[in-house]
Amino acid sequence: MRAILAGKGALPGLLLEAGPARLVRFSGVPVDVPVGGAPVGDVPGRDVPIYDVIEARFEQLGRLFDDLRAAGVSEVCLAGAMARPPLDPAAFDPFTAKLMPVLIQAMEQGDDALLRAVIGVIEAAGFPVVAAHLIRPDLVAPEGVLAGAITGQADAARARAVLDALGPLDVGQGAVVANGQVIGVETLQGTDAMLGFVARTAPGSGGVFVKRPKVGQDLRVDMPAIGPETIRNAAAAGLAGIEIAAGNVLLLDRDAILAACAHTGMSLWARP
Amino acid sequence: MRAILAGKGALPGLLLEAGPARLVRFSGVPVDVPVGGAPVGDVPGRDVPIYDVIEARFEQLGRLFDDLRAAGVSEVCLAGAMARPPLDPAAFDPFTAKLMPVLIQAMEQGDDALLRAVIGVIEAAGFPVVAAHLIRPDLVAPEGVLAGAITGQADAARARAVLDALGPLDVGQGAVVANGQVIGVETLQGTDAMLGFVARTAPGSGGVFVKRPKVGQDLRVDMPAIGPETIRNAAAAGLAGIEIAAGNVLLLDRDAILAACAHTGMSLWARP
Repeated sequence: MRAILAGKGALPGLLLEAGPARLVRFSGVPVDVPVGGAPVGDVPGRDVPIYDVIEARFEQLGRLFDDLRAAGVSEVCLAGAMARPPLDPAAFDPFTAKLMPVLIQAMEQGDDALLRAVIGVIEAAGFPVVAAHLIRPDLVAPEGVLAGAITGQADAARARAVLDALGPLDVGQGAVVANGQVIGVETLQGTDAMLGFVARTAPGSGGVFVKRPKVGQDLRVDMPAIGPETIRNAAAAGLAGIEIAAGNVLLLDRDAILAACAHTGMSLWARP
Repeated sequence: MRAILAGKGALPGLLLEAGPARLVRFSGVPVDVPVGGAPVGDVPGRDVPIYDVIEARFEQLGRLFDDLRAAGVSEVCLAGAMARPPLDPAAFDPFTAKLMPVLIQAMEQGDDALLRAVIGVIEAAGFPVVAAHLIRPDLVAPEGVLAGAITGQADAARARAVLDALGPLDVGQGAVVANGQVIGVETLQGTDAMLGFVARTAPGSGGVFVKRPKVGQDLRVDMPAIGPETIRNAAAAGLAGIEIAAGNVLLLDRDAILAACAHTGMSLWARP
C-alpha cells in the first residue's frame, strides 16, 4: 500500500489514479483532491480508484506513522505544495516534540532543507519515500518535441547556463532568456510570479523559458512541474517556447498542457 | 578637456560639476541635463560650470571624433543609460559604415558587448575612456555604514554568492535575499523592476538587497548605480537594508540617497 502526503495542486489526484493508495491530508494544508469521508470514484473524465483518507497533523508524526503502519503502508510520496501551517504547541506528541530541534534547524536553512529533513524522518520511521514520477512515469516527458517546434536554441542554452550556475546555491528551477538577454530568474516565489514579471517588464520578447531541476536536486523534494497555467502565463509573457528537462519535470497534466499549447501556439520540448 | 557622452539620469550633470567638459548629446537619446543652446550655470542648488554641447549622431562617429579633436578633448566618459535609437541608413558617414559589421556582431551578444565594442572604437580613435568614479571619486562610498546599521549579514552573504555565481555569465548586478531565501535576481530590466517584483510577490520580507558590479566587469560600461528611487523602492518592497560594493557603485546622488534613507528608515552600507 502507498500513502500520498497531499498538498495543493493536481499531483495527488494524478497519483491516486496510479493504483491503490491512502491519501494523507494534514490539518491546515489545502488539498485540491476531493477528500470527503467517502471514497472517491466519480471524478469527471477520470477513473479514480477508491482510496481512504488518513487525517494527520504535523504536530503528531508519531501518530501518523502508527496510522500508516496500521493501514499497511509500505511507501510514501510527497505530492503537491504544502504551506507551513502554524503549529499548536499543545498538540505535539512526544515523538514529534523530540524531533523539533532537528526540524527547526533545517527550517532555518529554507524550505528544501526542511523537506529533506522531513524525508529523513519518514524514512527513519521505516517508510521509503519515492518520487512522484516513479509512481507515474507518464507524468514526465522523454526527449523530444511535445508541441510546436524547438525554437531559440541559443537562448535556451544561455538559460541552462544560468540554472547550472545557480544550482549549487539551491536557487533557480527556471530562467527566461530572449535574444541572448536574461530577463527572468525564478526565485522562491515560483514560476508564475516570474512569468508575471516578464509579462510586465519585457513584453513581447519571443524568448524561451527553461525549466529544470536544480543540479543534484532530490526529485522527491519540490520536483519541478509545469501545468496548463504555465503555458498560458508563458504565452501572456510573450514567450515563444518552453524547454523542460527530459524525465525530470512533471506535466500536470499532459492533456491540459498540450491543449494550452495548441490554444496559445506555444512550443514545448524536452531536452536531456 | 573632457567629453561626457550623455545618457539618461543624474550622472552627466554630476560629472559636469567636476570641471570643464563638453557635453555630447546623441540624436534620439534623452538627456536629463539642461542642454539648450546656451551654457548652463544656474541649476538650483548646484554650482554647475559652464559647458558646451556637441550634438552627435551614432551614424556619424567620424564626424564626432573630428568635433572632439577640434574641441581639444583628451578623454571621454560614457555617462548614463542610452537606449538604442533607430539608425538612419542614409545618415552614415564612411568611417561609421566601415565599423558596422563589428558593431552589429557585438550587438548580437548583448548591450554590454556593444558598449565594450564602442569603447574600443573610441579608444582606437585616440580618446581614452574613463569611468565616472575616476572623475568624481566622491560618487562612490568607501567601506562603512552610510545610514542605519548593518543588518541581515547572512542574507547579504547569500546574495553575494548568487551574484558571484552569475557574474561569469554577465548577468546580475543585484539580488535580494530574505531569511536565507533568494526572492529577487536582477535581470536586464534592472533594479527598479526587480524591487517592484519583490514588492508584489514577497512583501514585508525584511530582506537585504545587494548591489555589486559583475565579477570582472569593466566599470566604464554600465557601472552599477543607486539613487534615492532605489532606496524608496527597496523600502516599498519591505526590505530592511541595502549593501553596495565599496568603491564600485555610484551614488546618484549621495545627499538625496541619505535623505531617502532617513525618510524610510532604510539601512545602507558599503562592503569591499
